[in-house]
Amino acid sequence: MSKIPVIEIFGPTIQGEGMVIGQKTMFVRTAGCDYSCSWCDSSFTWDGSGNHLVRQMGAEEIWNELEGYGGDCFSFVTISGGNPALLKNLGSLIALLKQKGIKIGLETQGSKWQDWFYDIDELTISPKPPSSKMETDFEKLDTIVSRLDGSGRISLKVVVFDEQDYSYAKKVHQRYHHVPFFLQVGNADITTEDRSSLVKELLLQYEQLINNVVKDPGLNEVKVLPQLHTLLWGNKRGV
Amino acid sequence: MSKIPVIEIFGPTIQGEGMVIGQKTMFVRTAGCDYSCSWCDSSFTWDGSGNHLVRQMGAEEIWNELEGYGGDCFSFVTISGGNPALLKNLGSLIALLKQKGIKIGLETQGSKWQDWFYDIDELTISPKPPSSKMETDFEKLDTIVSRLDGSGRISLKVVVFDEQDYSYAKKVHQRYHHVPFFLQVGNADITTEDRSSLVKELLLQYEQLINNVVKDPGLNEVKVLPQLHTLLWGNKRGV
Ligand code: SF4
Ligand code: SF4
Repeated sequence: MSKIPVIEIFGPTIQGEGMVIGQKTMFVRTAGCDYSCSWCDSSFTWDGSGNHLVRQMGAEEIWNELEGYGGDCFSFVTISGGNPALLKNLGSLIALLKQKGIKIGLETQGSKWQDWFYDIDELTISPKPPSSKMETDFEKLDTIVSRLDGSGRISLKVVVFDEQDYSYAKKVHQRYHHVPFFLQVGNADITTEDRSSLVKELLLQYEQLINNVVKDPGLNEVKVLPQLHTLLWGNKRGV
Repeated sequence: MSKIPVIEIFGPTIQGEGMVIGQKTMFVRTAGCDYSCSWCDSSFTWDGSGNHLVRQMGAEEIWNELEGYGGDCFSFVTISGGNPALLKNLGSLIALLKQKGIKIGLETQGSKWQDWFYDIDELTISPKPPSSKMETDFEKLDTIVSRLDGSGRISLKVVVFDEQDYSYAKKVHQRYHHVPFFLQVGNADITTEDRSSLVKELLLQYEQLINNVVKDPGLNEVKVLPQLHTLLWGNKRGV
């Protein structure tokens, strides 16, 4: 069986974002991304700075480590990256987790399809807005969304830093109007260690985003959320 | 048509709690409660202090006011209290909202059944833990949960202030194991106007609750959430 490049395994903790916000979960973070977002808060997964952390692991090996940390205290595993959708052989881990009765959440920007998407319980597709300096391939996104549409197991999430991002988010919501849609406040300061001023700033930006959304008839059926883990633990990694 | 005792109508804003956390919504708050929880943050709905705010309103009248505040900027209405389940004739408002294509969220402690529960899109049942000084009628709760079980439209939510509340929450989760379950941090200081120290304290308590949950095999399939509106707006009313 081919190996999966894993850069972090941690938990149990809670999911801080999106459709399963608050969910008790373990995390498996895979290495590698086809994007390089300007504000990426996980750039160590792809910019070389985390190379020493990458381990090539088999599904059983990952499971053993999950059990080692989580014991009998988890029933949900979140796979994040980087972009885990780069890894065709992640299917082996997903099959094993399902066999163990574990629910699976996964987040990807929607640049690649994998057949194992069908087996994810909570798939968050988070296309990246203009401030990321990345370009969305909407035809690819159309294909991914149309394959999973109506399953009740996908959602879209767009992070908003500025007005252009906000317009982009509206465009995405309009294009896939029937897919549950989450707006999330961007964290513009991914290095500060001053947690209390970060919390203050993030809550302020969250309030501003809410103020825009509540008066916008183009964004009625949306949920607007902060990143709970950033409010709780600032920019600390592995919590 | 008989009238509904309404104490507040406001929005659009976001839902700060539970199964539809972050959802853009209008609020209708009804007057009256059969409980008197020690830490009730809406005691003006039942302790007499808000009597001058109560208006007896028909469904059409409530709708007109919702439209007046919300215009075309809403598609979701949350009904809260007090205990809206005391009001049999709330059915008229619920029927009207459904006719208008509006989705409906409602929260009640689960002490009373109403046939219009079947028409609520997102029904949160929040039985009150020991610190409230109230006593849960579990037989009544059994009936309510069993009637709505499997609908995908109910959840349970327990607010936790202390260890006894935590044990109570576990008991509730075990009794209704297949119902989506939310743990919420209690706000012990419902009067302070010092928002930044309130935020600090609430995040600290939230982290402590998470720390307990993550190492507890009896609480694997749960979501642990804060009250977003309290983080954003402190103890201010009508936001
Ligand atoms: S897609 Fe995600 S992991 Fe990749 S660069 Fe962008 S934010 Fe970072
Ligand atoms: S049930 Fe709710 S509204 Fe009634 S007293 Fe308790 S907290 Fe307050």
